[in-house]
Amino acid sequence: MKLTNSYIKGLYCSKCGKKYSAREVNHLCECGAPLLVSYDLERAAKELKKEDLRDRPTSLWRYKELLPVEYEENIVSIGEGMTPVIPLPAAGARLNLKNLYLKDEGIIPTGTFKARGAAVGVSKAKELGVDTITMPTNGNAGAAWSIYGARAGIRSVIVMPEDAAAITRKECLAAGAELYLVKGLISDCGKIVGRGVARHGWYDASTLKEPYRIEGKKTMGLEIAEQFNWEVPDVILYPTGGGVGIIGIYKALKELQEMGWIGEKLPRLVAVQAEGCAPIVRAFQESKKESVFFENSSTIAFGINVPKALGDFLVLDAIYRTNGTAVSVTDEELAAALSVVAKTEGIFTCPEGATLYAAVEKLAASGFIAGDDKVVMLNTGAGIKYPDVIQSEIPYLELDAEL
Amino acid sequence: MKLTNSYIKGLYCSKCGKKYSAREVNHLCECGAPLLVSYDLERAAKELKKEDLRDRPTSLWRYKELLPVEYEENIVSIGEGMTPVIPLPAAGARLNLKNLYLKDEGIIPTGTFKARGAAVGVSKAKELGVDTITMPTNGNAGAAWSIYGARAGIRSVIVMPEDAAAITRKECLAAGAELYLVKGLISDCGKIVGRGVARHGWYDASTLKEPYRIEGKKTMGLEIAEQFNWEVPDVILYPTGGGVGIIGIYKALKELQEMGWIGEKLPRLVAVQAEGCAPIVRAFQESKKESVFFENSSTIAFGINVPKALGDFLVLDAIYRTNGTAVSVTDEELAAALSVVAKTEGIFTCPEGATLYAAVEKLAASGFIAGDDKVVMLNTGAGIKYPDVIQSEIPYLELDAEL
Repeated sequence: MKLTNSYIKGLYCSKCGKKYSAREVNHLCECGAPLLVSYDLERAAKELKKEDLRDRPTSLWRYKELLPVEYEENIVSIGEGMTPVIPLPAAGARLNLKNLYLKDEGIIPTGTFKARGAAVGVSKAKELGVDTITMPTNGNAGAAWSIYGARAGIRSVIVMPEDAAAITRKECLAAGAELYLVKGLISDCGKIVGRGVARHGWYDASTLKEPYRIEGKKTMGLEIAEQFNWEVPDVILYPTGGGVGIIGIYKALKELQEMGWIGEKLPRLVAVQAEGCAPIVRAFQESKKESVFFENSSTIAFGINVPKALGDFLVLDAIYRTNGTAVSVTDEELAAALSVVAKTEGIFTCPEGATLYAAVEKLAASGFIAGDDKVVMLNTGAGIKYPDVIQSEIPYLELDAEL
Repeated sequence: MKLTNSYIKGLYCSKCGKKYSAREVNHLCECGAPLLVSYDLERAAKELKKEDLRDRPTSLWRYKELLPVEYEENIVSIGEGMTPVIPLPAAGARLNLKNLYLKDEGIIPTGTFKARGAAVGVSKAKELGVDTITMPTNGNAGAAWSIYGARAGIRSVIVMPEDAAAITRKECLAAGAELYLVKGLISDCGKIVGRGVARHGWYDASTLKEPYRIEGKKTMGLEIAEQFNWEVPDVILYPTGGGVGIIGIYKALKELQEMGWIGEKLPRLVAVQAEGCAPIVRAFQESKKESVFFENSSTIAFGINVPKALGDFLVLDAIYRTNGTAVSVTDEELAAALSVVAKTEGIFTCPEGATLYAAVEKLAASGFIAGDDKVVMLNTGAGIKYPDVIQSEIPYLELDAEL
């Protein structure tokens, strides 16, 4: 049994601070709030060197000391992480921005950033001896956990709204998961899963109901810091549904600060939502610490159709503490943005990721983003998972046709 | 204008050896055979060190000295290459194989290995001042060239059989390509494209009709060598349609040999085809140097539905010279293989890639593959691009359902 040399100390409540063990299954705190993982960063700062990363594998496991898995044999990996940061000179120039980048989470197993949470979450579940995982999902998380679950030999029970991206169903099935559809939203699926957990004692992998998914998402922040040579960019935009990514990125940056690997400056974090489902934006505009359930939510960016996130207060906290902001865009604006980024930069983003360029346009106009700011858009998935977003008549040619 | 320090010398005919310039547009040789790129490998051997790669970007451009692009500014890149080599312990154990690996080309822009050919091909086209690219395609190559073309500012005219994977149409459209569908095979599309080329002088990017796509595919061979620490594996299996990948891998290994970066041993190269379209397998069985047009071809692995490849003689040559072989599998066998690899290893391969595990099973049974051979299956794309391969009824749950 080879140690990863993880600096994990344990779990603590994100609201009341109560401590829990990371060597047994724990979900939410008694007080109902999500648990977070703590590390011995003082020791990490002394022992771990940036140069140690140089010859590491180009997966998120290069940061294994800052991840919660304690034994190498429990790592479930199919090549996830170190996604490229791609300059967007043409799309940037249209908005008079000199340093616009896209970190492309489409180039990862399962085609979305959900692979990060699943890789770390499933690995830790394996370490904890879990045999059945269950979750409600807007599609991609369920697909990713099913896939990693298959590799780990863990059974998955997935409940998904029928409107979720159709391809994600096929991934669950290919991986051998037990999949159910619901005529409703992820919140409806969550209630069904909750009853299943109570009845069968399954491992509840719902967003933020287990503490390790966020550790996987955290690696996006670690990678951005490393990819910018430990000089963090000025702005990071993130399409926000459950918000685990923005919480994870913030947690990563704070941990790197504590280790002295980055300086005092933090990027301004921007939560981008669809106008049809913008609970975080509303709460931000009203300077609230928590959001209110967004009634009758609707958007083509289905992955961020989350009317009320369990970690909303952590998302808002990350925004406030980094002098960030929250912006919403319409489905029309995101469709136009998707087209511009694909046609000028050759990057076919998912609809959720496309909200970001629309948001950048607004924030450049408002002055929140300056012309020479380094701006990173976190495209959370590959456009190929959402073929229905592109609609067009395609002409047929006869065999003897002339072009 | 920053030089890449490419060691490119020029082009030569793969059949008659006639030389051509790589600084002007050249397609086939006068004799009708494909042109290949030559490099000054003697100088490369003296000047380039394996250690130079250590701090290179984890994209295929880490090998830029062995690629045909001469100026950095012409490189069109969105993070392609250095795809993971993933061990398959469970799927291997089922066949009593100790060292079975899958190199996953699904984790790349556009979700298939076609991105490699497109990245290098489009970059060189940009360097040569091309304004319009055209090609017949079974889907994924057209998608990839459209996407890279968009980033390069080059117009794409794509002709595709209506049976090609539907998602690839959407990629072409998203990228702004001019797309046409044909009720026929890629060979029918090729005739239409050929007339368009003759009429308009467009750049013909058909398989092997321009010399640079193969240089992109070559990087799979370079990566495998580097990822196995310059001790090449014993067997590499490749799903073979046009065969550019196997030709490219062979070319890469020969170049590395000439530079002294790998020893005398070469992996045995295995071309895997569908029983419904197996011209290379037939030719191999008959010890022929070229294949015969495969009439009425049909397979669910549409990407390898290529009844007669322009480079068939190069594929066969690579097989013969490495003591390799050629194997065909049925659609039923590939479907079963896809299921095993997804359910036991968490890797959702494309149907073309799934042929490989079925072939490994046959070759392990025949003794061609020994239990401790290091075997690499080159999965050419992500299963998510082929959602229709997975068919199943999915149960619905009512809102008040109990799991």
